Amino acid sequence: MINRQLKLARRPESRVSLDDFSYEESQPPPVEDGAVLARTLFLSVDPTNRVWMKDVPQYMPPVALGEVMRAGGLAEVVDSRLDGFAPGDLVFGMTGWQDYALLRPGGALGLAKVPTGLDVAPERFLGICGPNGVTAYAGMVEVAGVGEGDTAVVTAAAGSVGSAAGQIAKLRGARVVGVAGGSDKVRMLVERYGFDAAVDYRADDFAEQLRATTREGIDVLFENVGGAVMETAIARMNARGRIALSGMISIYEGRGSTRYDWASIMAKRLKVQGFNLIDCEKLWPKAVGQLVEWLRAGRIVADETIVDGLDRAPEALNLLFDGANHGKMLVRVA
Amino acid sequence: MINRQLKLARRPESRVSLDDFSYEESQPPPVEDGAVLARTLFLSVDPTNRVWMKDVPQYMPPVALGEVMRAGGLAEVVDSRLDGFAPGDLVFGMTGWQDYALLRPGGALGLAKVPTGLDVAPERFLGICGPNGVTAYAGMVEVAGVGEGDTAVVTAAAGSVGSAAGQIAKLRGARVVGVAGGSDKVRMLVERYGFDAAVDYRADDFAEQLRATTREGIDVLFENVGGAVMETAIARMNARGRIALSGMISIYEGRGSTRYDWASIMAKRLKVQGFNLIDCEKLWPKAVGQLVEWLRAGRIVADETIVDGLDRAPEALNLLFDGANHGKMLVRVA
Repeated sequence: MINRQLKLARRPESRVSLDDFSYEESQPPPVEDGAVLARTLFLSVDPTNRVWMKDVPQYMPPVALGEVMRAGGLAEVVDSRLDGFAPGDLVFGMTGWQDYALLRPGGALGLAKVPTGLDVAPERFLGICGPNGVTAYAGMVEVAGVGEGDTAVVTAAAGSVGSAAGQIAKLRGARVVGVAGGSDKVRMLVERYGFDAAVDYRADDFAEQLRATTREGIDVLFENVGGAVMETAIARMNARGRIALSGMISIYEGRGSTRYDWASIMAKRLKVQGFNLIDCEKLWPKAVGQLVEWLRAGRIVADETIVDGLDRAPEALNLLFDGANHGKMLVRVA
Repeated sequence: MINRQLKLARRPESRVSLDDFSYEESQPPPVEDGAVLARTLFLSVDPTNRVWMKDVPQYMPPVALGEVMRAGGLAEVVDSRLDGFAPGDLVFGMTGWQDYALLRPGGALGLAKVPTGLDVAPERFLGICGPNGVTAYAGMVEVAGVGEGDTAVVTAAAGSVGSAAGQIAKLRGARVVGVAGGSDKVRMLVERYGFDAAVDYRADDFAEQLRATTREGIDVLFENVGGAVMETAIARMNARGRIALSGMISIYEGRGSTRYDWASIMAKRLKVQGFNLIDCEKLWPKAVGQLVEWLRAGRIVADETIVDGLDRAPEALNLLFDGANHGKMLVRVA
């Protein structure tokens, strides 16, 4: 049993490189009381990983230099000193970029067992039936209160969170327009995810496309991107619109301003609310239950893009920022 | 009966001047069916008046060139063709900068009778028991949901809206810190309006003063100012804080950026909500009833600053932007 680890060696400026990490091999640690030792099967690759590498104020402490890179993952218990957990159990938790992790319960992102007997692939609990689906649910249902009569726009709509957010808004009766990069994704939003319309933010006439597909304005904006894409959408918002601010991937690599218009918030009486999974502990079981039900009933679909090998985790993160993924980006480790 | 009118002749660049208006005298119009003809007694002077003069997107149409300057006012009915209204009745409505106005019911800012028999001076229904008190109530109670355990900060705290907002937050059990300009106002906030602490935004060590008076961070920000004052407060906000965005007086005269940080909204999961009286029609009777009750019980205090003469309305507006007022700024017309 060799534990390969990628530890943050320096803070990347823009793109992430394998050279930003030190590679180490060691024995896995012995299991401790109240914990399990688990072997990582899949790593969840998320925009927020990039924020954790930066020494800036954020919703969790940044990853320290010399520390194993933090990441959520799906893992198999190999040893346990925690009641209710036994070798062979599938769990998710903050495994980090390594083969073996000591995991303990606690927090919305803490150790939890993967539900069994539901006919849902385990890795889906890292995406549509886990953090990404719950984020989509929290933003659309709890923050934005989307419903019938609303026009909802989702940015980064072909991603794991975005594709779920759009489908949830549809299930709640809204008209849904997705924003994504490239004609393949735009087509996929309509044909596979059932969006009413989709527009390409890379197109020269993006603003005109968005206007043409939101003739009655925008009531709900589920925002993953920030920057010019977000500002173009805000210009289309109706009075008393709601912006569920899930993320701003456009600024995580250190480029671009973080300063956007506030006069529109005032003039249009908008509600702009930042939200994060770490505040969703109470919502989690209800949302996951609903998502599993929708998934099994075929009322919601989800995709995964899988990159093979622990040492490709930095590359997978870059691919995510390039928008090269369809749906959930995963790294297969074991 | 001569009707003096101030009509917007050109759009002011920064400061407002009497020269920006054309002065006209005419006969008052005849009363029309479903309306009253009313004689203006007091004009309400509000930061939003300045916005109405600008040809920019806003929550109402801007005042057109050649149109009587829009303003709320307290007036006495002199002729009526509206059921329930008779000569001598005191009313408030959008009188504008003129002696006589035709007023009709409708909307949160439409014609309404001043309640009588409550032992409350009529002009108070233009301030603490009217638009300003209801704005304060809406922001603190409905938008921010302020309560026990919260630290609430109010900017422009010595103004009509701000002084009411702070006192309402106190009545709801919060710890309240006011931000105002100059030592007189700072003293007044604590001694007269009962704020727990107050700081002077003009002081060199404003940020340090704010830090010292909000040791446990800020949970609720009732924002009237925008700009650097607001950004200093946002830097002190706690996770899941609420910003009730009532106004941004710092930008209404056309100076200063309207672009502020959004990364904090995300990182701290803040709720930022713009709100406006025009959306408060349902809240109005409940809020006014509560404010009158508090005022009569001596649980809330309010002040007025009165400038005499219709032709001094532009000057009164400038004084408001200079922060020369204590509490509600009014122009006495009749």
